[in-house]
Amino acid sequence: MIVAVGSIAYDTIKTWIEKRSYLLGGSASYFSIAASNFSKVDIVAVVGEDFKNKDLDLFINKKIGIENIKKEKGKTFHWEGTYPQNGDAQTLKTELNVFENFNPKINDNLKNKPILFLGNIDPTLQYNVVEQMNSPKWVICDTMNYWIEKKKDDLLKTMSKVDILIINETEIKMLSEDKNLLRAVKKIKNMGPKIVLVKYGARGAALFYQDKHFVIPATPVDKVIDPTGAGDTFAGGFIGYFASAVKDNEVTFEILKKATVYGNIMASFTIEGFGLDNLRKIDNNMINERFKSFKDLVSF
Amino acid sequence: MIVAVGSIAYDTIKTWIEKRSYLLGGSASYFSIAASNFSKVDIVAVVGEDFKNKDLDLFINKKIGIENIKKEKGKTFHWEGTYPQNGDAQTLKTELNVFENFNPKINDNLKNKPILFLGNIDPTLQYNVVEQMNSPKWVICDTMNYWIEKKKDDLLKTMSKVDILIINETEIKMLSEDKNLLRAVKKIKNMGPKIVLVKYGARGAALFYQDKHFVIPATPVDKVIDPTGAGDTFAGGFIGYFASAVKDNEVTFEILKKATVYGNIMASFTIEGFGLDNLRKIDNNMINERFKSFKDLVSF
Repeated sequence: MIVAVGSIAYDTIKTWIEKRSYLLGGSASYFSIAASNFSKVDIVAVVGEDFKNKDLDLFINKKIGIENIKKEKGKTFHWEGTYPQNGDAQTLKTELNVFENFNPKINDNLKNKPILFLGNIDPTLQYNVVEQMNSPKWVICDTMNYWIEKKKDDLLKTMSKVDILIINETEIKMLSEDKNLLRAVKKIKNMGPKIVLVKYGARGAALFYQDKHFVIPATPVDKVIDPTGAGDTFAGGFIGYFASAVKDNEVTFEILKKATVYGNIMASFTIEGFGLDNLRKIDNNMINERFKSFKDLVSF
Repeated sequence: MIVAVGSIAYDTIKTWIEKRSYLLGGSASYFSIAASNFSKVDIVAVVGEDFKNKDLDLFINKKIGIENIKKEKGKTFHWEGTYPQNGDAQTLKTELNVFENFNPKINDNLKNKPILFLGNIDPTLQYNVVEQMNSPKWVICDTMNYWIEKKKDDLLKTMSKVDILIINETEIKMLSEDKNLLRAVKKIKNMGPKIVLVKYGARGAALFYQDKHFVIPATPVDKVIDPTGAGDTFAGGFIGYFASAVKDNEVTFEILKKATVYGNIMASFTIEGFGLDNLRKIDNNMINERFKSFKDLVSF
């Protein structure tokens, strides 16, 4: 149901507590594992010859389609980052490896899928992917400050094809060139997306659709172990639930609101474990329980 | 019903848009005007000979008790501050004037009031005020980083008398010496307060009571004109509603949750105007309407 284009990486992560090397990571991994709790996902990505079978098995166990994960000569994309206590990730090293020449080709068996998730990659590649599909009903896009700064024109071309933009607070201000959130959202809508989801990191998220909006706070978490992948997991929970709930092309505000809450919940699981440790263990009961607690947390 | 001890000031405020001089301000002013929409408030404060009758009239119009606002020889407390766009206040000048020797004396007519709000003043003075009262049922305390740094022992003495602490995110971490919010709240509860309200500034607030908590997000505001007084107004909305709803000493989580929302709403009105411009115009219909919109904003 969902085609997810993005990165698969080996991450070396140093938090304020510990350091671990060459863990499975990347936007497509976090996204698809989160989304797989709700919907069928096919990953379109590239890995190197060093990619381990046990990592592939994780996707298979989650019933994620791996036929479009291409293995190329060379090494898997490697990211190394560190987190100062309560701070944003600082990149220490980026080794693109096989990802450097990633030019996603959508196989025929995926071209008619209704939902396309464009993970945070070069906007030119994102555009090429959209063009290869047979008019997907929903195109969802993630991006980052790097592309807004370096390839804004290409990003705007991609944006004209996007239905749902998932973006953080700093990025939406950069992209819209407006510091007021409500005005910024209006400008983004003029670029293409009908639905805008703004991530506030550990502070929750806001959803904008038509003239309506919906805001959710952070879920206080007992202990943040590792923030890596929170944003991708948020997108995965959102799109995964969205795909399972949206019927015959009809979207409702209710579906979008619930999807936002599921995104928030999946992200909260991710940050409670190191890398994918916690996310890989989550089942439907745990999700439903946290959904209920979250509802209690914000109802009055 | 509520006795509010704090500052009355003339503020000179420079925002990113404009600068205005010698406007009525101070924690007791913002607090009591916000609270007056819900409950009867008596201010305990000091002003100078320059204090204008028209400013006193504002309190009178809001049915705020002014009998305990003492006029002393000298000038009214003067604060001058500036806001960088979307940033916290920077103090440019503080002229304590008559506030320097402020030593609040609670008159007999106020000693039996059930609710005491201790605005952000020297914790020694806060303690003296509590001692002068005849065992108020509810003592609510606001404080700031300055007192946590300079007079922590005195503040802890005050805290032992406090039922509800209103504090921001940075301050609670300083006071508890713990960066994890949930642990920090536990430590604060061991100092005295049964109820802790954490303000996230433009990002909403969290309420902690018994083993329960409640979190609300920011209300997106069309245009922030001036953030001055947002925290005091939040406390005013919270305590004002709390005082009107709490009966015979019985507090419920429902009352506290609604009080938190009313605090948030009153703060949102404040920041949409310069100084007290907007807050002074608010009526019950406007409050009820915004309460309803806020409920829509966060319900799913």
